[in-house]
Amino acid sequence: MKRVLIVHAHPEPNSFTAAMKDAAVQGFEALGYEVRVSDLYAQKFNPVASGDDFQVRANPEYLVYAKEQRASYPDGTLSPDIAAEVENVLWADLLVLNFPIFWFSVPAILKGWIDRVFLSGPFFGGFRFYDKGGMLGKAAWVTATLGGRPHMFGARAVHGELDGMLSHLLRGTLGYVGFRVLQPFFGFHVPYISAHERATMLTEFKHAVSDVEQRAALTMPSLDHFDERLRPLDPH
Amino acid sequence: MKRVLIVHAHPEPNSFTAAMKDAAVQGFEALGYEVRVSDLYAQKFNPVASGDDFQVRANPEYLVYAKEQRASYPDGTLSPDIAAEVENVLWADLLVLNFPIFWFSVPAILKGWIDRVFLSGPFFGGFRFYDKGGMLGKAAWVTATLGGRPHMFGARAVHGELDGMLSHLLRGTLGYVGFRVLQPFFGFHVPYISAHERATMLTEFKHAVSDVEQRAALTMPSLDHFDERLRPLDPH
Repeated sequence: MKRVLIVHAHPEPNSFTAAMKDAAVQGFEALGYEVRVSDLYAQKFNPVASGDDFQVRANPEYLVYAKEQRASYPDGTLSPDIAAEVENVLWADLLVLNFPIFWFSVPAILKGWIDRVFLSGPFFGGFRFYDKGGMLGKAAWVTATLGGRPHMFGARAVHGELDGMLSHLLRGTLGYVGFRVLQPFFGFHVPYISAHERATMLTEFKHAVSDVEQRAALTMPSLDHFDERLRPLDPH
Repeated sequence: MKRVLIVHAHPEPNSFTAAMKDAAVQGFEALGYEVRVSDLYAQKFNPVASGDDFQVRANPEYLVYAKEQRASYPDGTLSPDIAAEVENVLWADLLVLNFPIFWFSVPAILKGWIDRVFLSGPFFGGFRFYDKGGMLGKAAWVTATLGGRPHMFGARAVHGELDGMLSHLLRGTLGYVGFRVLQPFFGFHVPYISAHERATMLTEFKHAVSDVEQRAALTMPSLDHFDERLRPLDPH
């Protein structure tokens, strides 16, 4: 049996994005997955990384956040809200991030979930990133809504490539820690479309969930192409 | 007299990034600027966009965040912490975002400052973005620290172009609302360098502050090249 963690971040419980979350829960259960949901607004998840995240401080005088993560995780002294989410991610075979795009990125509550949960140590460290990252063997899937229309994205479009705008998340975060990053699902123009168009989009999303195991993945760098100082082996 | 707003977001008050903030305050004062600082950790700024951000709700039953922004700003019913920051940005000729890069983006507390302060209405709306954005005539400058080294960024480098990873912020956020976006200042490898190297880097940063009015800007799209539906006028 496979396991999926759906991390959902939308301030309106009746939003279309929330309907996608509910459809994903049903769809993954129908596929035989065990499902966990972290509903960050409902949990009132604290997104602010700080020294309070560590019950014991390796250095109480001067905070280097990643160093405290590396000490606290093996010692079991992480703040319990972080420890619970770390356990969820380690438990899951598939991580789904379901959110409305705010400023070509995740809402702050989800950014803080990443800042606090993607620990230096189990998730990455030193030369353990991309295809050597801690999440190797797991997949991640971004399922997001936005106000823009498809023709606003592309090489010559007004906003450029949407995957490029989201490269900090797709490559710099999910790919960085070793996830196989599936092609995102985007619900375009959601605040402005009709109820009928929303129903059609939700049906498309349900099909995407059903077909998730056939979904293509994005290409990520391989550390095999870089030397021990991370310089390209073939710089040309 | 010119006015600068420095928005600073670092959890450690004695960090190198905080030293950059202090150096920026001194440097801008020496240039004759009037300076305001929003120190988000010190202010315990709330980064979570929610219905609580509006003292009166246009639609209490269903939250569309941007629609509530458009109603609350002219009515003066925005949450006071947001209203104060909006006033700071409108007051300033130059906005400086000073932060450590977390996951190729801003820390969540600063993401939430953007989510809540960059209002639909005065900052952007409809066809008012990029060179028609609400912040036209103002400049914005990202001054950030990171763990990576310069050779890890570039067309063939392990992480690709750093400005590309940050396109959601430089183009999709600051450029989008109309700021002239200055070339960022990056303090590379900060957690790992010696005290001497930090002193050298701080001196470089002070020179960058002194020379800010000569600093080059990034190229942003112009809406003049797109039609009324935002399709490229010359698609080839």
